[in-house]
Amino acid sequence: MNVKRYLPLMDWLPGYGRSQAVNDLVAAVIVTVMLIPQSLAYALLAGLPAQVGLYASILPLVVYAVFGTSRTLSVGPVAVASLMTAAALAPLAQAGTSEYLIGAVVLATLSGLMLMAMGLLRLGFMANFLSHPVISGFITASGIVIAASQLKHILGVEASGHNLLEIVNSLAGSIGQTNGATVAVGAGALLFLLVARKRLNPLLRAVGLAPRLADILTKTAPILAVLVTTLLAWQLNLGAQGVKLVGQVPAGLPSLALPSLDWGLWQQLAVSALLISVVGFVESVSVGQTLAAKRRQRIDPDQELIGLGAANVSSGLSGGMPVTGGFSRSVVNFDAGAETPAAGAFTAVGIALATLYLTPAIAYLPQATLAATIMVAVATLIDLPALARTWRYSRPDFGAMLATILLTLAHSVEAGILAGVGLSIGLFLYRTSRPHSAVVGRVPGTEHFRNVLRHDVELCPKVTFLRVDESLYFANARFLEERVMDLVAGEPALKHLVLVCPAVNLIDASALESLEAINERLRNAGVALHLSEVKGPVMDRLKNTDLLANLSGEVFLSTYEAWQRLIGQSVAQRIIV
Amino acid sequence: MNVKRYLPLMDWLPGYGRSQAVNDLVAAVIVTVMLIPQSLAYALLAGLPAQVGLYASILPLVVYAVFGTSRTLSVGPVAVASLMTAAALAPLAQAGTSEYLIGAVVLATLSGLMLMAMGLLRLGFMANFLSHPVISGFITASGIVIAASQLKHILGVEASGHNLLEIVNSLAGSIGQTNGATVAVGAGALLFLLVARKRLNPLLRAVGLAPRLADILTKTAPILAVLVTTLLAWQLNLGAQGVKLVGQVPAGLPSLALPSLDWGLWQQLAVSALLISVVGFVESVSVGQTLAAKRRQRIDPDQELIGLGAANVSSGLSGGMPVTGGFSRSVVNFDAGAETPAAGAFTAVGIALATLYLTPAIAYLPQATLAATIMVAVATLIDLPALARTWRYSRPDFGAMLATILLTLAHSVEAGILAGVGLSIGLFLYRTSRPHSAVVGRVPGTEHFRNVLRHDVELCPKVTFLRVDESLYFANARFLEERVMDLVAGEPALKHLVLVCPAVNLIDASALESLEAINERLRNAGVALHLSEVKGPVMDRLKNTDLLANLSGEVFLSTYEAWQRLIGQSVAQRIIV
Repeated sequence: MNVKRYLPLMDWLPGYGRSQAVNDLVAAVIVTVMLIPQSLAYALLAGLPAQVGLYASILPLVVYAVFGTSRTLSVGPVAVASLMTAAALAPLAQAGTSEYLIGAVVLATLSGLMLMAMGLLRLGFMANFLSHPVISGFITASGIVIAASQLKHILGVEASGHNLLEIVNSLAGSIGQTNGATVAVGAGALLFLLVARKRLNPLLRAVGLAPRLADILTKTAPILAVLVTTLLAWQLNLGAQGVKLVGQVPAGLPSLALPSLDWGLWQQLAVSALLISVVGFVESVSVGQTLAAKRRQRIDPDQELIGLGAANVSSGLSGGMPVTGGFSRSVVNFDAGAETPAAGAFTAVGIALATLYLTPAIAYLPQATLAATIMVAVATLIDLPALARTWRYSRPDFGAMLATILLTLAHSVEAGILAGVGLSIGLFLYRTSRPHSAVVGRVPGTEHFRNVLRHDVELCPKVTFLRVDESLYFANARFLEERVMDLVAGEPALKHLVLVCPAVNLIDASALESLEAINERLRNAGVALHLSEVKGPVMDRLKNTDLLANLSGEVFLSTYEAWQRLIGQSVAQRIIV
Repeated sequence: MNVKRYLPLMDWLPGYGRSQAVNDLVAAVIVTVMLIPQSLAYALLAGLPAQVGLYASILPLVVYAVFGTSRTLSVGPVAVASLMTAAALAPLAQAGTSEYLIGAVVLATLSGLMLMAMGLLRLGFMANFLSHPVISGFITASGIVIAASQLKHILGVEASGHNLLEIVNSLAGSIGQTNGATVAVGAGALLFLLVARKRLNPLLRAVGLAPRLADILTKTAPILAVLVTTLLAWQLNLGAQGVKLVGQVPAGLPSLALPSLDWGLWQQLAVSALLISVVGFVESVSVGQTLAAKRRQRIDPDQELIGLGAANVSSGLSGGMPVTGGFSRSVVNFDAGAETPAAGAFTAVGIALATLYLTPAIAYLPQATLAATIMVAVATLIDLPALARTWRYSRPDFGAMLATILLTLAHSVEAGILAGVGLSIGLFLYRTSRPHSAVVGRVPGTEHFRNVLRHDVELCPKVTFLRVDESLYFANARFLEERVMDLVAGEPALKHLVLVCPAVNLIDASALESLEAINERLRNAGVALHLSEVKGPVMDRLKNTDLLANLSGEVFLSTYEAWQRLIGQSVAQRIIV
């Protein structure tokens, strides 16, 4: 066993020097400032006490620095995983109860163990079954659901629901209880954040800041909103005016504890944990790869599974919630100059300090401010133009995407993603089950053969050349049988059928039996079956079978060779189609 | 709507003449003689009263003659569908009760309606998801379970169970109660049938019969066993000696009745009905296609669904059980000279006559004789060499086959077939998710490009040519990203990457985004991305996208063109691998 493979830390730690430490430290300070409000907000989104978000931003970051392969990924709570956590726990317990908290810890631990198992078994490819349109549709729909779920905090009303229909219904019933002071804080923070996003950056550049620094400072705007509204809430005693505050948060670092070992609970959360794992992994890997590529570094997806898995297990052990690599934070970390995962470990120190010394201030932080932070953050997730782009490029992909969006909005995140995965696999199988095939003829005077429907080619009624443009496997094996038998039924003079196979990358056992059946049926009908342009690896496997021995015709290296042998120049009959 | 498409009868009935009628009649007599014991035996196998098998062999045959497209398929009860019927009904009711009978009728009706719906929606391709190894493994395992389930009738003991483990366990407990007279009848019939199968055919040929006639008569041997043992049972009063007889069978034709409309029952039977439909359809279509091809006829799978569906619905309406096209009966029908589906209708008349006049004799028929008939018939289904063949040709296919067999034997027919389908789809996706790709170089002095690992080719450190041998879709899109980024990370001098795409039949939306991401990442790394040999239809779709506009490199018609443009003859560096 290669220990180094499982400890990517060994790649950079031995040569770690002063200049890298300084760069990592600067990045860590900026990311910490960004992560404090995010971690509190995503904990509330998940239905958990605010400190759980902080706990999930300490130990997991250190653990990821040891086991992760991305140099710049910023691990911690993220919006979509938090929504999925809330959806997974809702059927089990009421938010705020200790059962709910126990469930969150189990969910983090279980999804961490699943990720680690997938990594050790090298099952990273499983993430591939989430097609881009499904992921994109799912994240867009999740963004909409998350934004809608935060409206109650901005309005200061009670509402519930885990899909758009439920949330809208619930809001419609409680909109009358809107609290003015809360709206003032929430809408104010929202407006500030929206303006900051649009105007702060040009402003900072205008006053002479370097563009990169301006970009980074713009991303830290939420901490300003947090500071101002917290101060206001404290000074104006907004809590007494009905503005919900985060409230008493226990000071101090999380204590380590084993998660509940209730087997029934683990079973109930298994599917949710798997979905959170896979979605989180896909999000992490895509941002990690994008950033690594900019510096011609690379990440190892199987080791990433182990790194993220260990981070989640450590999150569970330290009273946290599911974590993964966040998109915008990682970009900030990268742009701020982080060079190694040590930046993540330094960020963890920053969050630990906040947990120790900032909790009294956090008590006065209005929930509406956090809701505004979330809404602005998830707005970037919502990508409706992707629907139009996908529609233009591919209708089947669009169908899978739309189904994912609609089911996520109208039913649940789990139904949405499962339907999307099922539909995209089904559509792919359907597409390949009716492969393109063409009767080809000889382009006069050449050795080339082209589709008779598109080109003027030479044909011979006694010999048909059929080109198949797909690997042959169980889903299209019978289709091939039908295609061939239809051809033969329609051409009474036929004596030879040549299957032209340059695009056949695989012939599985079903297709082999179909070819044997075709050979047998053609023989009964007095037609010889020939093959041409069979690829090397495919031919190697066919040599182990009876097909070649029983073949009523021959195997030709090139289609032109078959033409010469079976027809000859003289009898060819020119047909202009 | 084209009425004729849904009434294949119109193809042959208008020209139906005397010579065809004679041929059909002869075939019908022979098939009737074969079908009487089979229909009784399969009804008992399904746990139903013997007459249900007869009922299922009257109306369904007439209905199939109207709606089916195979000229020679012999529809009726078959072994595997009967086993599946027993397995489906076992959890609902005790065999022999009226609830059980009601269930069988609902199962036939429901699977008929499903088949018709699939036909009208042209969903015949769904049957393709049953790969050959899964079907073959399933039928082998079913044959073993069926043969084992009949042992109790041969031994004259009580036993139960719907998988091999249960049956063997149950038999082990009751073997002490073996009834001598029953064993004498059962083992005698078994021996006779086995000998008849091996020796009767050569004997008949030796006495001068035509080979085809000898083949046909050999297949009717079971009726001889039935006649002799029935006579013995009657004369020797074997019933009093503990030999179980078929017993009183109501004389007369079945009465028509609507099936139970208990919605709960329909829901409970839905999955079983679907599996029976699909398995029966696959069995029918493969024998139908084989026979049709011999006469250069063809069958229409979507219309077959309608024909088989209507036959099953009519079976349900007339108190029958699920039916489908049987393999050996259809071959006999064909060999006996049947020319049109009228032969099936004539067979129905024969069975109707048997129902009217032969039931008093059937009462004395020993169940052991029917069990022997079943065991000999299913012996031909068991194809263990197929396991070795599949192992040699393809390990993944072998895995799916073995899982199907083991689960069918050890758990249930439904678990076996569902696991097989799931596994074969999963394995196909896995295979295509790691497509073959090769870095290619120029064969010196030619325009050809081959794998650098297999051939002596020219390379250039500034330009890499990567050929991908698979359609690009969601399951392998990320694989391509990783492959490309690994390549780039390993070659610091690289300036150009050419993707060579002659085997890419499809680029779905996920792969398109991956290509866009690759293009972007390569641009950041200072590498230009080029494409070559993109197929026409793939190129047509790419033209609607931003990829081509944003491409950092060019699109070349041929790889050689890319070589000339990017390298030129002078700088090429020969590398002998």
